[in-house]
Amino acid sequence: MLLLRLRLIVLYLCFSIVNSHAEDGRKLWLRYIKVSDQQALNRTIKTTSNHPVAQQAKQELDNYWKSTNLQLTINRKATNLKDGFRIQQNKNGLELIAQHAVGLLYGAYHLLNEQELGRDFSSYQIEEIPSFDIRILNHWDNLDRTVERGYAGYSLWKWEELPIQISPRYEEYARANASIGINATVLNNVNASPQILSSEYLNKVKVLADIFRKYGIKVYLSVNFSSPKVIGGLKDSDPLNKDVQHWWKHKIKEVYQLIPDFGGFLVKANSEGQPGPQDYGRTHADGANMLADEMKPYGGMIMWRAFVYNPTKEDRAKQAYQEFVPLDNQFRDNVIVQIKNGPVDFQPREPFTSLFGAMKNTAQMIEFQITQEYLGFSNHLVYLAPLFKETLDSDTYADGVGSTVAKITDGTLRKVQKSAIAGVANIGEDRNWTGHHFGQANWYAFGRLAWNHQLSSEEIADEWLRLTFSKEKEFVHTMSKLMIDSRETVVNYMMPMGLHHIFAFDHHYGPEPWGDRPSGRADWMPWYYHNANVNGIGFNRTISGSNAVGQYNEPLRTIYNNIDSCPENLLLWFHHVSWNHKMKSQRTLWDELCFYYDQGVQEVREFQRTWDQMEKYVDAERFNAVQSKLKIQSKDAVWWKDACLLYFQTFSRQPIPYSIERPIHELEEMKKIKLPLKHHN
Amino acid sequence: MLLLRLRLIVLYLCFSIVNSHAEDGRKLWLRYIKVSDQQALNRTIKTTSNHPVAQQAKQELDNYWKSTNLQLTINRKATNLKDGFRIQQNKNGLELIAQHAVGLLYGAYHLLNEQELGRDFSSYQIEEIPSFDIRILNHWDNLDRTVERGYAGYSLWKWEELPIQISPRYEEYARANASIGINATVLNNVNASPQILSSEYLNKVKVLADIFRKYGIKVYLSVNFSSPKVIGGLKDSDPLNKDVQHWWKHKIKEVYQLIPDFGGFLVKANSEGQPGPQDYGRTHADGANMLADEMKPYGGMIMWRAFVYNPTKEDRAKQAYQEFVPLDNQFRDNVIVQIKNGPVDFQPREPFTSLFGAMKNTAQMIEFQITQEYLGFSNHLVYLAPLFKETLDSDTYADGVGSTVAKITDGTLRKVQKSAIAGVANIGEDRNWTGHHFGQANWYAFGRLAWNHQLSSEEIADEWLRLTFSKEKEFVHTMSKLMIDSRETVVNYMMPMGLHHIFAFDHHYGPEPWGDRPSGRADWMPWYYHNANVNGIGFNRTISGSNAVGQYNEPLRTIYNNIDSCPENLLLWFHHVSWNHKMKSQRTLWDELCFYYDQGVQEVREFQRTWDQMEKYVDAERFNAVQSKLKIQSKDAVWWKDACLLYFQTFSRQPIPYSIERPIHELEEMKKIKLPLKHHN
Repeated sequence: MLLLRLRLIVLYLCFSIVNSHAEDGRKLWLRYIKVSDQQALNRTIKTTSNHPVAQQAKQELDNYWKSTNLQLTINRKATNLKDGFRIQQNKNGLELIAQHAVGLLYGAYHLLNEQELGRDFSSYQIEEIPSFDIRILNHWDNLDRTVERGYAGYSLWKWEELPIQISPRYEEYARANASIGINATVLNNVNASPQILSSEYLNKVKVLADIFRKYGIKVYLSVNFSSPKVIGGLKDSDPLNKDVQHWWKHKIKEVYQLIPDFGGFLVKANSEGQPGPQDYGRTHADGANMLADEMKPYGGMIMWRAFVYNPTKEDRAKQAYQEFVPLDNQFRDNVIVQIKNGPVDFQPREPFTSLFGAMKNTAQMIEFQITQEYLGFSNHLVYLAPLFKETLDSDTYADGVGSTVAKITDGTLRKVQKSAIAGVANIGEDRNWTGHHFGQANWYAFGRLAWNHQLSSEEIADEWLRLTFSKEKEFVHTMSKLMIDSRETVVNYMMPMGLHHIFAFDHHYGPEPWGDRPSGRADWMPWYYHNANVNGIGFNRTISGSNAVGQYNEPLRTIYNNIDSCPENLLLWFHHVSWNHKMKSQRTLWDELCFYYDQGVQEVREFQRTWDQMEKYVDAERFNAVQSKLKIQSKDAVWWKDACLLYFQTFSRQPIPYSIERPIHELEEMKKIKLPLKHHN
Repeated sequence: MLLLRLRLIVLYLCFSIVNSHAEDGRKLWLRYIKVSDQQALNRTIKTTSNHPVAQQAKQELDNYWKSTNLQLTINRKATNLKDGFRIQQNKNGLELIAQHAVGLLYGAYHLLNEQELGRDFSSYQIEEIPSFDIRILNHWDNLDRTVERGYAGYSLWKWEELPIQISPRYEEYARANASIGINATVLNNVNASPQILSSEYLNKVKVLADIFRKYGIKVYLSVNFSSPKVIGGLKDSDPLNKDVQHWWKHKIKEVYQLIPDFGGFLVKANSEGQPGPQDYGRTHADGANMLADEMKPYGGMIMWRAFVYNPTKEDRAKQAYQEFVPLDNQFRDNVIVQIKNGPVDFQPREPFTSLFGAMKNTAQMIEFQITQEYLGFSNHLVYLAPLFKETLDSDTYADGVGSTVAKITDGTLRKVQKSAIAGVANIGEDRNWTGHHFGQANWYAFGRLAWNHQLSSEEIADEWLRLTFSKEKEFVHTMSKLMIDSRETVVNYMMPMGLHHIFAFDHHYGPEPWGDRPSGRADWMPWYYHNANVNGIGFNRTISGSNAVGQYNEPLRTIYNNIDSCPENLLLWFHHVSWNHKMKSQRTLWDELCFYYDQGVQEVREFQRTWDQMEKYVDAERFNAVQSKLKIQSKDAVWWKDACLLYFQTFSRQPIPYSIERPIHELEEMKKIKLPLKHHN
């Protein structure tokens, strides 16, 4: 009996050890190792601040800091630091100085990451000041816990359990965000349920805000413009209706009583069927300003989305500009217009939205999509930093040469009350947070670029890989290159050369260039975007076409308008191009299209080969998970290639160049594929 | 109105033209163009024979022969010609001489083919004598019109319409066979229904025999050994039971009264559950001889299959030899033992069956499978002439060096009453006869090799391509090479290096190396054949294993027994080999296995590329059909590769070499695939 019991204990211990080593990705990039008692004795960590956020900073350092003595100092005069920090040598070791307690927290994570990355602190000094004031995630989470365009399981927010039961993941979430400088979050979908403003839900929100506060994170909510009517019982939600204004005033007061540091509202109005001020003949400015006025006493912000378009004859890509530019100068200074990076919708590649910089006296912020709605969901390995950087670094020429989207939005060129940058989160209940382990890199990259948009994609990949997977040079070097390449690869196998929005209807997973719905809106149909016919392919947005080029400042207008100067990676965005058009490669357009699709396929296969060779550097669980995802990506790439080439071939009427791997799918069979996917999880 | 009618007429004419050009493959390799009236006047075709077969020969020539004058002569003394013919110049033009009328028919098709192939007849002369006396197709067609292992639709034989209604395809079938020298056919499945011998069915069979007779084709039937009991109402079917013998005597008499030139019976007895003489403690010889004795007065043959094996501990590959060799010298001279080319079952590659030549005083014939039970059904392009040739040319050393399977069976080395060769037909109701257009080539190749086993695979492919598709040099040259390569390609992606029978259970379409059925026979399970474990893979048939090598004559016994001399393409057939065994390539066995599977995949992709480049030479209908089949083959090749490599990797525990394209399937997902296929159509 004793022997049996002993055996069971041994078995149990073995299992526990195996289990504690199970690597499901939950730790993200936060893999600090606890200090030993001896290490703790070898250094002191001191702070004079009792601020809970400063105490949180100290706690992290107490737990994990193994190097020299540390002094954490708040210096209210160091206003230039904003939310940032300075690290310098003092006589006892290092001093971490910040204007605000949150700066100490960011400094603490910075130091811990630097320690992880093996930095030498003997003459260490650095100053870090965030690029944007508000670095915010947009969760498209519904109150029923589905997540619109979410591919990592249900929502983290267990509304049905709140405010009583508290998932430990709320704090884990806040800590992960704080560690990369994210300081704000919109908890709910921009297609907002009015219920979020009910007292019942606000009391749930308060619990999350209380948890997040310790990590310097402010809570925002998406609001439904019809809330006064729907949950307030008013006869309408007209922003010029006094009753409506009154309702909002009281509601906002209620919010601030519960959450004194509440961030503000995000509003999707008069867009894709959402209610808005135009329902009452009012403008976006009327709507935004009404809310901003009620919010102003509390210091709250209104983020008003510019993602508006209607099924008119006007090019969808032009409509945000057309609707918002006339409203310039009309918005309150606590309103900020939130503009998607591209003029259509988070495509694998778009030019920057022409609206950036076009409103001279209106604060603007950019909205990126971290979740991969149009990039293979959480099945495809696509590192988004190069995509984010491509837009941020785009020169709008709005205020002369060098007016990049980054500088237009970060306050450098135009003073704003608060600058901001938003990313639509890719986070869900999945134990690894993002579905694909490499999806974590996109959350990380968004945070890092929001903190410092001058970082290169390579630097961020390098940091993330080393913190998340392995510090082995061979691994980091190889995988960093793969990550960098991955964005162009997805462009190649999905929609190269400026093609866009030829996705399967509604769910946007696979290819459907032939897509058509008799009752559907034209601007939701692939043919609206690719315009393929026997003569050629592409959307003519030149002055002879929709003249979307006219919305860009010179020299871009001329560059984009001219087929010879238009960048080839945006060619079919701006031009309808003959199949036999000679590309710079000397290939015809048709051959080049085939070439890119095939290149995408070959590149994904190369990713598979590369990853397989990394097996020795990666734990089995994450290795296998990523290997499986790459298999899906590899199959999907072939599907994309075959679907697009076989479909477009019905117009080009030319053979796929024989140097290229042949299709394995039948066009007619692919047309029958209807995936049982919804646009939420 | 008139204009409208005119338009309709024009439309109708256009449609008719298009329709008459529709190319569904029904014409096979018989695409002679009718002579014009003028061409007919320019030559005479004469014969002195009124034999219906001679008249048929003359009719074909009247219809299509455009060259010089022709004299068709029967010379009974030209016995050396057997069923063949001689063509020589005479003063008026050409003379076609044969011993029998059927020789004139073969000569007629020969001349028409030569005309098609553009031969010059000015000094033409040739003598053609068939290699085998009986050149027979085995149809595995059931009376309900399903076809066991049939992949070209239902059976050609519309039993429910016979004997009243006559499909025109019966004659088309006979003509096609005659054109390549096939002179016999077994109408029904070797797993035979006793009903085929009922008077009702014999009257249907008679109709087919009457049609085939004009083309020199004799009808045979598969019979169920239990027929006396099942349809005769006897108490048993014991071959030594006088009542049983009496029943057969009367039944055979009935057959010959209906069909005076009836060919004989094919019998599958005591094999895979079929009844046989062993059910009564009698031997195969007892059973075969009883039938042979009753058949003898009419000149009929008994073809007795040697495909017998039981789920004992003995290696399945050895059992036919063990069971039949002791019976040598016991069979009547109108019995011929029909032996499958390989010792297991029509695998992509097998050594020849050791039984060939091992019975010194028993007539033996070979059975090939034209239908692609183990070669991708009618989805994969696999040209079988190289497989047929490989066995026919194998030296058994039974009567010294040069005792090839061909010479052992064709009467060269051992005199037999009648030599024979059988092929399991791949023919069905599909409009192109064989499902895959290139399946026609295997029917053609079987016929041509039965006529002359010295022909090379290349010669046959060349002829077939030119007669069937196009005479363009580029096309013929390219596609002939592809066809020749295709057999090794299927070996590469299915089971290279001597692997065998790792097919999905029952239907044998895809891979299932992991296959296991708790209630199933071991010798139907893939593990029985591959024996993969952590040490290695393969079936040890050396003297330290099952000693199947002991059934081969020297020097083969020694060559096969020694791992260093065993041909590498049969290595895992004869040896259980360590994963790290060094191959001649200097790769390890595991790496080499990976290499072959990948090579198979790459080769099929190359076939696709090649075929696509042939588009200009081929009609659209057949081009598209073959293109689609190649897509399936390409996907299946990847499936095979992934399934086998990922499964065997669980034993080899080594990475797939990184130079090789990575798997896109998950092993566990592939294990779940259960195709809704039966073992008949």
